[in-house]
Amino acid sequence: MPNIDELIAGVKNNDIQALARAISTVEDRRPGFEALLSGLHPDVGSAYRVGITGSPGVGKSTLIEQLVRAYRDTGLTVAVVAVDPTSPFTGGALLGDRIRMKTLSSDDGVFIRSMATRGAPGGLAMTTREVCDVLDAFGFERIIVETVGVGQSELAIAHTADTAVLVMMPESGDGVQLLKAGVMEIADAYVVNKGDRPGAEALMHEIRSMLDIRASIAADAAPIPAWNPPVLRTVAIEGEGIDEVREAIENHAIAMRESGLLEDRRRARLREHTREVVERAVVQALWQGTGAGERLAGGVEEVLSGERSPYDLANAIIADTLETSVD
Amino acid sequence: MPNIDELIAGVKNNDIQALARAISTVEDRRPGFEALLSGLHPDVGSAYRVGITGSPGVGKSTLIEQLVRAYRDTGLTVAVVAVDPTSPFTGGALLGDRIRMKTLSSDDGVFIRSMATRGAPGGLAMTTREVCDVLDAFGFERIIVETVGVGQSELAIAHTADTAVLVMMPESGDGVQLLKAGVMEIADAYVVNKGDRPGAEALMHEIRSMLDIRASIAADAAPIPAWNPPVLRTVAIEGEGIDEVREAIENHAIAMRESGLLEDRRRARLREHTREVVERAVVQALWQGTGAGERLAGGVEEVLSGERSPYDLANAIIADTLETSVD
Repeated sequence: MPNIDELIAGVKNNDIQALARAISTVEDRRPGFEALLSGLHPDVGSAYRVGITGSPGVGKSTLIEQLVRAYRDTGLTVAVVAVDPTSPFTGGALLGDRIRMKTLSSDDGVFIRSMATRGAPGGLAMTTREVCDVLDAFGFERIIVETVGVGQSELAIAHTADTAVLVMMPESGDGVQLLKAGVMEIADAYVVNKGDRPGAEALMHEIRSMLDIRASIAADAAPIPAWNPPVLRTVAIEGEGIDEVREAIENHAIAMRESGLLEDRRRARLREHTREVVERAVVQALWQGTGAGERLAGGVEEVLSGERSPYDLANAIIADTLETSVD
Repeated sequence: MPNIDELIAGVKNNDIQALARAISTVEDRRPGFEALLSGLHPDVGSAYRVGITGSPGVGKSTLIEQLVRAYRDTGLTVAVVAVDPTSPFTGGALLGDRIRMKTLSSDDGVFIRSMATRGAPGGLAMTTREVCDVLDAFGFERIIVETVGVGQSELAIAHTADTAVLVMMPESGDGVQLLKAGVMEIADAYVVNKGDRPGAEALMHEIRSMLDIRASIAADAAPIPAWNPPVLRTVAIEGEGIDEVREAIENHAIAMRESGLLEDRRRARLREHTREVVERAVVQALWQGTGAGERLAGGVEEVLSGERSPYDLANAIIADTLETSVD
C-alpha cells in the first residue's frame, strides 16, 4: 500500500502514477482514502465538471471521444470518468473506454478512467464525486462524467456535475420515456446524436416542445433566467456538430458563473457531501469502534425468533452508543 | 394522525382502512412508523413474496393481473406492490395499476398499491420491504412486488422477494442486455411474454443457452441444486401460459422450503434489514439528538472556505457524539 502522504504529494506534483493509485485508493475505499481526500481538499475546485448521460446505444462514447478532441484543440486538459451503474457484474463493459483509449492514450492532456459499480447507487454517486475531486486536485481543467442509462442512479451522478448534457437518438422512443422518467428535468443541454437519421428533426422538435411546456407551467424550471437549454444535432461518428456541443457547455459554464449559480450549487453540493461524509463515517465508526457490531450479532437471534423487533434492537444499540439527549 | 397502537390493532384485525393508513405511514416515514413496524413484527413471516421485474413494455402489468386471478382461483389472497424506481417525478405513472384496479378492486382478497419513488434507491428497497411486512402481518398469503426496469435498484428490490421472476419479450434485444446488466444472475424463473410474436422461440433458446453456460462455469450459480430455472412462454393478454407461471412460482417455493434455503435467505435478509434499521436510526439520532446538526452547520463554512476538509469535520463530529473506543 502506498503511503497516503506520498500519494497526496504525487497528485499535487502532477505524477500520473500517483494519480492512478490515488483514484484506485478512493474507488476501492482502501485504508486512508479519507485522509487522502482530506489532504487534496484545498486543491479542489478549479475543474469544470460536465455530466453526460443517455441510454445505451445513443453514441455517448463516440460523442465524448470527439468532445475530448475538441477541448484538446482549444488547449484544455480533460479527464473522463465513465460510470456504469447498471452493471454490477461486468464492471462497465458497456462503456467504450477501450476504443477511446486506443486513440487518445498517447496524449498527456487526457485521462480516461472507467468505474465499476460498487455498493449502492448512492454510494456510487459519492465515489464518483470523490474520484472527480482527485482529478480536480491533479489539475484537469474539464472533467466529463459519463453515465449509461436514464434511471435514478444516473440522475444522482449527473447532479455531481456543473453542466448536465442528455444525449438521445432518433427512433428510440427516448423522448417520451425520458420525460416520464424525469431525466428531462435536469439537463442543461440536449444532444440528438445520429442526427442524419430519419426522425432527428422530429425528436428535436419534441424536445423543444417539452421545454416550452415546462417553461410555461413552472417559472422556476429554468434555473438561470437567461439560459435556454439548447437542443443540438450531432453526427458524432462524422465529427459533425461537436464544436457546437463544446460551445454550448462553455456558454452554460459562463452563464452559471455570471449568475452566481455555480457558486451556489457548488456550496450546496459540498454541504450535502459533508453531510454524507459524516453519515458514512459515523456508520463506520459505529460498527468498528463501539461494540455495536457485537450487540447486533447478539440481538439478531432475538429478532429472528420474533422476540424482539429490529426497531427495538436499533433503539437499544443507539441508547448505548450515541451521546444523545433524546430517549 | 391515527394512533399507532390503533393502527397495529387494526392491521391485525383485518381492517382494510387501517391497512391503507399503516402503509402510508410506513411509505411516508411518518412519526411512529418504526413503532408500527415493531408492533407488527411478531406477525410477519407467513406470506410468500414474489418479485416480478422487466423492462417497460414487456407486459408485466397484464401478466400480474392474470397471475392474481390465477392465484384467486386457487383461493389464495394476493397483495401487489408496484414500485417504479425510475420515476422520481411522475410517481409511478408507468405502472398500470389503475387498469388493474378497475377489474380487481371489488375483490376483498386482492390489494393493490403503487409506490412512488422516495429518496435513494437503497431507501426504496428498504421501504418496499417494510410495506410488504405490513401486508404480511395483515395476512395476505402471496405478495407480488412489481418493479419496472433492469438496473441496480431493481435488483435490490428483487432481493426483498423469495422468488424472483424476470419478464422479457421477443425482439426487444433484452436477452443480451439483461445478461450484461447482471439481472439474469438473480431470476428463479424466466417468462417470455408476447410469446406469439416472431422471435419468441429464439429468445427462449437464448435464455436457456445462457443458463446452461452459467451452470457449467459456476456450480454455485444454481442456489438450489434441484432447481433449474424454468423458461416459460406466455401471451398474458390472452391468458395463455399464466397457470404455468403460477405453478413454477409455487414449485420454487416448495423447493426453497424443502431445501432449507427459504429459511436461510429470510434469516440473512432479516439480519441485513436489522443492520440497515440500526444505521438509519443512528443517522437520524445523530442529526436530531446530539447537536451534530449544529456542529455540521457551523463547520460547513470552514469546509466551503477550504480551511477544513469534510473528512476532518466528520472526525470531529464523531469524536464528540459517539461513545467510541477508537480515536
